[in-house]
Amino acid sequence: MKPEFIAEFCGTALLLALVVGSGIMGDRLAVGSDALALLANSLATGAGLYVLILTLGPVSGAQFNPAVSALLAWRGAQTWSIAGGYVVAQFSGAVAGVLLAHAMFAEELLQVSTHVRAGPAQWLSELVATGGLLGVIVLCLRHQPAALPQAVGLYIMAAYWFTASTSFANPAVTVARALTDTFAGIAPASVPGFIGAQVLVVVVVGLFFKVRAGRRS
Amino acid sequence: MKPEFIAEFCGTALLLALVVGSGIMGDRLAVGSDALALLANSLATGAGLYVLILTLGPVSGAQFNPAVSALLAWRGAQTWSIAGGYVVAQFSGAVAGVLLAHAMFAEELLQVSTHVRAGPAQWLSELVATGGLLGVIVLCLRHQPAALPQAVGLYIMAAYWFTASTSFANPAVTVARALTDTFAGIAPASVPGFIGAQVLVVVVVGLFFKVRAGRRS
Amino acid sequence: MKPEFIAEFCGTALLLALVVGSGIMGDRLAVGSDALALLANSLATGAGLYVLILTLGPVSGAQFNPAVSALLAWRGAQTWSIAGGYVVAQFSGAVAGVLLAHAMFAEELLQVSTHVRAGPAQWLSELVATGGLLGVIVLCLRHQPAALPQAVGLYIMAAYWFTASTSFANPAVTVARALTDTFAGIAPASVPGFIGAQVLVVVVVGLFFKVRAGRRS
Amino acid sequence: MKPEFIAEFCGTALLLALVVGSGIMGDRLAVGSDALALLANSLATGAGLYVLILTLGPVSGAQFNPAVSALLAWRGAQTWSIAGGYVVAQFSGAVAGVLLAHAMFAEELLQVSTHVRAGPAQWLSELVATGGLLGVIVLCLRHQPAALPQAVGLYIMAAYWFTASTSFANPAVTVARALTDTFAGIAPASVPGFIGAQVLVVVVVGLFFKVRAGRRS
Repeated sequence: MKPEFIAEFCGTALLLALVVGSGIMGDRLAVGSDALALLANSLATGAGLYVLILTLGPVSGAQFNPAVSALLAWRGAQTWSIAGGYVVAQFSGAVAGVLLAHAMFAEELLQVSTHVRAGPAQWLSELVATGGLLGVIVLCLRHQPAALPQAVGLYIMAAYWFTASTSFANPAVTVARALTDTFAGIAPASVPGFIGAQVLVVVVVGLFFKVRAGRRS
Repeated sequence: MKPEFIAEFCGTALLLALVVGSGIMGDRLAVGSDALALLANSLATGAGLYVLILTLGPVSGAQFNPAVSALLAWRGAQTWSIAGGYVVAQFSGAVAGVLLAHAMFAEELLQVSTHVRAGPAQWLSELVATGGLLGVIVLCLRHQPAALPQAVGLYIMAAYWFTASTSFANPAVTVARALTDTFAGIAPASVPGFIGAQVLVVVVVGLFFKVRAGRRS
Repeated sequence: MKPEFIAEFCGTALLLALVVGSGIMGDRLAVGSDALALLANSLATGAGLYVLILTLGPVSGAQFNPAVSALLAWRGAQTWSIAGGYVVAQFSGAVAGVLLAHAMFAEELLQVSTHVRAGPAQWLSELVATGGLLGVIVLCLRHQPAALPQAVGLYIMAAYWFTASTSFANPAVTVARALTDTFAGIAPASVPGFIGAQVLVVVVVGLFFKVRAGRRS
Repeated sequence: MKPEFIAEFCGTALLLALVVGSGIMGDRLAVGSDALALLANSLATGAGLYVLILTLGPVSGAQFNPAVSALLAWRGAQTWSIAGGYVVAQFSGAVAGVLLAHAMFAEELLQVSTHVRAGPAQWLSELVATGGLLGVIVLCLRHQPAALPQAVGLYIMAAYWFTASTSFANPAVTVARALTDTFAGIAPASVPGFIGAQVLVVVVVGLFFKVRAGRRS
């Protein structure tokens, strides 16, 4: 198996273990103070994302996100066949990461979230969160690719707080978080709305680049 | 439309979405603990500012602040016509960012703040905050321009805490924050005092450089 | 005495003073909020680790961890004799650091922890924590060695939260923390399980590299 | 007046405004949670120190600390006459910074602290804090001077938590903090013990380098 697929699988798994695990730890220790739980959750996620992108970036690009893999393929930065393999690795890794977090915290392995996250405000938040993430990645890759790990880590840390959805911005993360009924969960019924918003952003950004490229040629 | 004006509009809008949005999220979750709300607010703002300056800096200089744009024009680092366009983009972007934060958090779009921030201690705080910000930018641009994103992000994070005004230091931010009756708001009647202090600092710093340049020639 | 042994002794001692000391301070001030205590503990540990690795890295490599020293010797990156000296320095330094923390906080110098940390979930957490740490170090040394201080510091900060064991990942740290009955302690009876998991990871990672090297030749 | 003396005066003043100001803000907002107040205080101080050293380092070396200025003069890195001027600037700047913090927070300008910080555990903490700070500076200047701002900022952030004294490590800071009866204060009667410990470290480190230099020649 190609090392980049292993890197995408492991990286996305560790990302979910990070998000779900630190959510459980924060929630258990904070006993009711959601602000403190989210603070720990957001700081741990931002710090961990930095490390994951720094160490796995040289192997696979550290995309960990079907929205990113699709956009890069659309723009010609990678083949659709690579992107397809990445997306499979990301979805399976994300699910594996949730199971790992449950096992580490002695939770039931298989869970279904009951945390409803829906409505126009939530969907708008996902539009903003995903658009911001793709903007950060595109601009950073163009002007200062070496700063990508800290840019994405700090963006996500901030986006936990400035969007009402706590910024999923990632279809694989969204699906996997439906499988945990802990702090970071999202009810399955709320998943299509979130993924719809994320896909819409990819399509709009992709078309924008296509139109611009067309004008220039 | 020139890409640098779009960058100033979007950057200032996202800055306000960040400040107001993370203020709402912190305030809602912290239920009464203003320390925890301000901690989340300051960490998210610092992290987000780093990302905005890093990614939009190569496009427009990432000024996002009429005080900075005016000072740079005064010192001859950019034309007054560019500075004028930037200031228009900053004020309109700032207002758009507040509306975006309200929409993401399902708040009334149009609000007016009732949070009075006035008196000599608050105005002194704005003098210090603005003077510090301009000092950081001027010294950083001279000696290590590549560190500007982290310098400004960490300065603002710290200034939320060490000034009594939580450090607005930006006329566009001040005006826009009058339009939100949430954690980050400022009552319209308090706006002139804050902007007066900010403008005073720009004038003093500008005159200082002018006098020094005069002496040298 | 060779400077690198002194660096390993002092570095590991300060690491333990950092972990145990900030745990005591956090626990005393937070009066019952374990989330706040762990937040302070994890941020101080991450920040301090960055500084220790940055400043002592050029002297000894800043390993501070028998698991790391053994793996590097196994891979041929250093002699077993150096690794042996490092391990002695690390264990003695770790114990000295706990005593130093107790002295600074006017605690009984000699203590034995009563904090039981056992069971499959805790051991799995140590497998993940140690595997992650070794992965970060190996990948970072290969692709961007200059980023090692921030990578390890931020990894440990995050691992305090995303593993259920708060991530010891270090046999010298584990033994020494059995000698403190404060926030960071671990009951002696729980030590073998933790060290067993840590050693298991070193063996598996070492064999993996051996097999891969064998295939290539 | 030489720009480096102005930089030492302003930098030390802003350092004290940072320490005392964020202490007041944290204490007022946290209403009784000293952990939360110290968390804000330590994060703001670390972030602000980074910015001060980054921006004023190229002007004066950003010493802001009589212990550092004396040690550097002893080692021949600067003349005693420069060091003397720096020390005057640092003490006067430190006092000015406390007054500035009081003015910004509408506190009585002149205060005397009633916060007793004494006893062997506190003095040992100051020995460790000061020794660690000097070690960080000496090693960082030798091996990676460009990382000094983040090394010192993160060291102090961590030292607020891992020493029982919250790490003053600076005679000018110690004297000035006797002049505030707020969160960061120290009773005048406790000042000699702290400064004694700090001076002792400078003497021991200075003699160590002298002896080592003697052996080599």
